[in-house]
Amino acid sequence: MSSILAVGSMAFDTIATPFGSHEKVLGGSVNHFSISASYFSKVNCVSVIGEDFPKDHLNLLNKRGVDTQGIKVAKGETFHWSGKYGYDLNEAETLATHLNVFENFSPEVPDSYKNSEFVFLGNIVPALQDKVLSQVSNPKFIAIDTMNFWIEGQRESLISVISKCHCLIINEGELRQLTKSFNIVTAANVISDWGPKLLVVKRGEYGAVLFNHGKIFSAPGLPLAEVKDPTGAGDTFAGGFMGYIASQPQFNLSESTLRKAIVYGSVMASFIVQDFGFKNLLPLTQKMIDERYQQFVALTAFHNI
Amino acid sequence: MSSILAVGSMAFDTIATPFGSHEKVLGGSVNHFSISASYFSKVNCVSVIGEDFPKDHLNLLNKRGVDTQGIKVAKGETFHWSGKYGYDLNEAETLATHLNVFENFSPEVPDSYKNSEFVFLGNIVPALQDKVLSQVSNPKFIAIDTMNFWIEGQRESLISVISKCHCLIINEGELRQLTKSFNIVTAANVISDWGPKLLVVKRGEYGAVLFNHGKIFSAPGLPLAEVKDPTGAGDTFAGGFMGYIASQPQFNLSESTLRKAIVYGSVMASFIVQDFGFKNLLPLTQKMIDERYQQFVALTAFHNI
Repeated sequence: MSSILAVGSMAFDTIATPFGSHEKVLGGSVNHFSISASYFSKVNCVSVIGEDFPKDHLNLLNKRGVDTQGIKVAKGETFHWSGKYGYDLNEAETLATHLNVFENFSPEVPDSYKNSEFVFLGNIVPALQDKVLSQVSNPKFIAIDTMNFWIEGQRESLISVISKCHCLIINEGELRQLTKSFNIVTAANVISDWGPKLLVVKRGEYGAVLFNHGKIFSAPGLPLAEVKDPTGAGDTFAGGFMGYIASQPQFNLSESTLRKAIVYGSVMASFIVQDFGFKNLLPLTQKMIDERYQQFVALTAFHNI
Repeated sequence: MSSILAVGSMAFDTIATPFGSHEKVLGGSVNHFSISASYFSKVNCVSVIGEDFPKDHLNLLNKRGVDTQGIKVAKGETFHWSGKYGYDLNEAETLATHLNVFENFSPEVPDSYKNSEFVFLGNIVPALQDKVLSQVSNPKFIAIDTMNFWIEGQRESLISVISKCHCLIINEGELRQLTKSFNIVTAANVISDWGPKLLVVKRGEYGAVLFNHGKIFSAPGLPLAEVKDPTGAGDTFAGGFMGYIASQPQFNLSESTLRKAIVYGSVMASFIVQDFGFKNLLPLTQKMIDERYQQFVALTAFHNI
């Protein structure tokens, strides 16, 4: 089993949806990513937290095989995001972003992480994603996520770091914004020209699309009778996706591995949206994950049935 | 091969998209449905046209095996719809609806159609859909489509005719509006309680979802580098869907048949959106249809590859 170096935010999320409101639940991109990926692989975390962050949660990450020595404790408060969703849970409206300890964050990769074969650059300032890359020695697979905020404000530096990655994982709306192309196929060509030959387009409840050197794979979302909170679904998806790839006995990016990885990402995302915070993600078992994978098989089969 | 009785509009469409504008191209729900279904089955058409409707087009339908004796020629002008689309081609904005000859239309089913095993009630006034049903003798499979206009103005009479059908084919947004349920799974339960145990939810470029007695199948849309005009995609989809079911050597609504039918519907829809009017639908061959079906197989396979 290979290990994944993941950088991103540890956060408190305050979330309002039509199905309830929750104050300061644990969240953050690298938090969601790591817990999800930990069902498949070892994860090495790089992030920063304030003094108000619960130690119990770090212990819990450790118990799940997530190495947290790269998570710095800084003076001040933990990053805090507030957002709300309407009935259309596909898009969040950001109400407030308190950077707090993230304001002066400069990621330092511990020596023991530097040989990680896989790197996930979660959604933070592009320059810091780049700084992480400069500290690792020749990883086999680098994936990057981002968001509208950086596309608007730091497009050039974002494209520069994307060009160094093998895989871009991004929301459909943000892909359009980034490439200035409305069509997903032509947008994928733009990304490929910049560098990454792998593109994963996240479409919320509509699933995800993988572009791999021109080949296309489309996976649906799992129709669920109850979706409570989509916060972190994208990072949880990325965790399942990369976790599955890293879990392969031998490193490979075959079409078969990548497609199954997309489905395992969708499996993990389908769990987290069913409740607030990590409530539904933490008690998972391999059996539950495998059963839900089989639900995706049943959901999509048509040719040989 | 069984025959399908299809009722709906024959129309002129005036369409503006970011990719071009076209005045009075041939369209209409039963027109799209019939041409699409004709690649699979025999179709018997019930509709009304004005004196301005080109005879050549009726000849063309006849050549494709579509029986047009149920299409009445009335004094006046043919139904004329004008609409426009933005870059998000998933939703049309209606600019004008000139009912013209449709204003006094009362569908009469020719005797030779009355034993049709399949009935498609295209999007017209619910009372007229009901009037068609009252004229047929015990069809094996009835599918119905509708639109926001009737949901808003004639909800009760619409639900009444839906309750007599086996299958509802409807846009996702209109399903929500009709059932007053935002969630697609709970909406499907509402429809099932009303009567139809089959529900096909059309999601534009995101594909289609089939609910069959509680089982769910999700098919993607085919990612296309160029989409010019989505007008009629829904009826074209319905034509492929019902056409494939009607083409079975023996009547069956097995999960296997229904799922393949959804994919053939998606195949036909993927063709029509690539150009205005019927330009891309009329020159199809069985080989082109089969090849595109295989593209859907390649697009979705993950488990046994």
